[in-house]
Amino acid sequence: MIDLPKDLLDRAEQADAQDPMSALRERFLLPPGTIYLDGNSLGALPVGVPKALAAVVEQQWGNGLIGSWTSAGWWEAPARTGELIAPLIGAAPGQVVVTDSTTINIFKAVVAAARLRPDRTVILVDQDTFPTDRYLVDSAARLLGLTVRPVAPDNTTEFGPEVAVAVFSHVDFRTGVLYDLPGITAAAHAAGALVVWDLCHSVGIHPADLDASEVDLAVGCSYKFLNGGPGAPSWVYVAQRHQDALDQPLPGWHGHANPFAMTQEYLPADGIDRMRVGTAPLLSLLGLEAALAAYDGLDIADVRRRSLSLTGLMIDAVDQLIGDLVEVVTPRDESRRGSQVSLRHPHAFPIVQALIARGVVGDYREPDIVRLGVAPLYLSHADIVRSIAELAQVLDTREYLDPVFAVRHVVT
Amino acid sequence: MIDLPKDLLDRAEQADAQDPMSALRERFLLPPGTIYLDGNSLGALPVGVPKALAAVVEQQWGNGLIGSWTSAGWWEAPARTGELIAPLIGAAPGQVVVTDSTTINIFKAVVAAARLRPDRTVILVDQDTFPTDRYLVDSAARLLGLTVRPVAPDNTTEFGPEVAVAVFSHVDFRTGVLYDLPGITAAAHAAGALVVWDLCHSVGIHPADLDASEVDLAVGCSYKFLNGGPGAPSWVYVAQRHQDALDQPLPGWHGHANPFAMTQEYLPADGIDRMRVGTAPLLSLLGLEAALAAYDGLDIADVRRRSLSLTGLMIDAVDQLIGDLVEVVTPRDESRRGSQVSLRHPHAFPIVQALIARGVVGDYREPDIVRLGVAPLYLSHADIVRSIAELAQVLDTREYLDPVFAVRHVVT
Repeated sequence: MIDLPKDLLDRAEQADAQDPMSALRERFLLPPGTIYLDGNSLGALPVGVPKALAAVVEQQWGNGLIGSWTSAGWWEAPARTGELIAPLIGAAPGQVVVTDSTTINIFKAVVAAARLRPDRTVILVDQDTFPTDRYLVDSAARLLGLTVRPVAPDNTTEFGPEVAVAVFSHVDFRTGVLYDLPGITAAAHAAGALVVWDLCHSVGIHPADLDASEVDLAVGCSYKFLNGGPGAPSWVYVAQRHQDALDQPLPGWHGHANPFAMTQEYLPADGIDRMRVGTAPLLSLLGLEAALAAYDGLDIADVRRRSLSLTGLMIDAVDQLIGDLVEVVTPRDESRRGSQVSLRHPHAFPIVQALIARGVVGDYREPDIVRLGVAPLYLSHADIVRSIAELAQVLDTREYLDPVFAVRHVVT
Repeated sequence: MIDLPKDLLDRAEQADAQDPMSALRERFLLPPGTIYLDGNSLGALPVGVPKALAAVVEQQWGNGLIGSWTSAGWWEAPARTGELIAPLIGAAPGQVVVTDSTTINIFKAVVAAARLRPDRTVILVDQDTFPTDRYLVDSAARLLGLTVRPVAPDNTTEFGPEVAVAVFSHVDFRTGVLYDLPGITAAAHAAGALVVWDLCHSVGIHPADLDASEVDLAVGCSYKFLNGGPGAPSWVYVAQRHQDALDQPLPGWHGHANPFAMTQEYLPADGIDRMRVGTAPLLSLLGLEAALAAYDGLDIADVRRRSLSLTGLMIDAVDQLIGDLVEVVTPRDESRRGSQVSLRHPHAFPIVQALIARGVVGDYREPDIVRLGVAPLYLSHADIVRSIAELAQVLDTREYLDPVFAVRHVVT
């Protein structure tokens, strides 16, 4: 055990003691001896999931077999799980469904949005977006005969009359910058364009207030801060006002108005269900549904407050302990900060590996970012201080120069 | 317990006793008192799955967290599981990957195939196809500016020089007709067209011999005869010779040549991996991987032989017991028969419900089909005789006219 800076630790312990949300950690099964700063990549295991999934497998599948489509409510699971996510993003009922991967939902959302603006020719995309968003935007544009223009999301002068839709991330996965969702959405609308927001790195830690901001469409991940399990299916939001006209490019039978009539003509279901495609991966989907119990009774505004308290403490600890050795990339301005702290260092990759060897699990992002995700439901302020103290040791000892830490792994 | 016809039962018991495959039933956890004839909709639970999934949840996710992408081999799971399916469909390694839903794989396959024949204008589609195939073919054609022509798959005169690709089902989901995959594929190739085969209702019960027939692309379901669990992700086959030029419309980061470089330009991975899109639903995928152990050591030709023995007995039992009351829709010709027996009756819907009330679980397909799926790994010949004897009772008593059996359920 390393020595911890007393002033920071006192502050942390006081903050933990005063915040009733500190008890939320009991809603998770975490490995002992680990401080997990990668919940923005794969969230931790909520305590009720193992038992819930065992029941799905043994009782619903094994015993109920095909009858579970009705008796266990499998058919409604995508919408039902969507309604659990809706209050976390400021969405009234009937606008969120869980289906497919984020990548595929981006494609559906972009094509559908562009078709709502048929006379326009340009799709804007966040120039630093998570790459898969860009690949799908490019593919959509190619199929629709449109042009893609990469831009900085906060450059609202890009919204000319030629812009059909913009696809932006709420929080930048690499830097942790939080963009001004209400302001950018308003600028798009003023120019007659729509916005598809990618909320992968904000859902579960920020009250996105989609309805209040009159967002058009949004997609997001369920396995990061929502803790839905590896590869849990993604969710998609379509504002009520766009649903009737929504014409999405993957019209599968689960999105049909009358799926069991088995007609050869596609008639889209009313409402958000038309974003469904094929049969949902039910073990993953029902695992997510059980996982969302970790958010039971929480106000997402309180989660946001705790997130800012934790990331604020982390930045202060970095400043105090290693301020001369790393650059804090994530904004100090709370209104522009997601729930992570990204640090720049030329040896970022082996530093992350050395930190993992000490039981502090963060991750690395090309080319030089140490990315420390802060999951407010299961991290304490004391964890934050410990993790930065360990990082200070890694830097002080230069142990990261050990060749063992240069081996590249696959990390998502 | 009803009286069973002695001659049929003797034949069944003899067949069961003589076939070592009768022991395969022990590889499944089946509810007592049920004869399950809906394994072509949702396969039964293989015995090793509950324990395997508990380990995935508690150890890989809960304990390993993000590190399980490497330590538990999550990244390779789509290809690894594809290689378990490959020998069941006559595919050499490197041509099958598990990813997304069947519906989405149909879209990817059709667009990619059409792009391999850029000067042609028509897509043929099975006129009686499972509807979702048709919806996605229509959407693909709309995006690509092509024309869709619905045809009977065995009418090979449809392959003119304008045809880019045909999308056909190997086994018709409603009637159980098995189409001549080698002959139709050869006819398509003779006209310069490609074929995308939908193997949803043949994978796991028929040695499709894709390589030997020089099939171009194929997709199939994992939760029917493969028993992968509800909504288990689908698989897709791309013949080696087409892979380098394959240009699919959902280019996600998991199909990128260097996914962790996070570049803004899509560079497709070598080989079949380029059919991957976003993060796989790992609980569902790893459930499928564990489920495929039910096929360990089996030769799919033996599975096919047992399937024909079971469906043959079923047709004989129908002829003997209720031949004057129902029409056998599924071909008596073994070379044209999938692994189901479909019976036509004007009261098909309530008949299926009455049969389920007796513990014989089949399903109904619009407008007048009693569909009895025959899963050769866990059904015995004695089960077959019992199920038709129960059906005979349902018809004899006319108990299906009870209004309770008229209530419509969702059944997939």
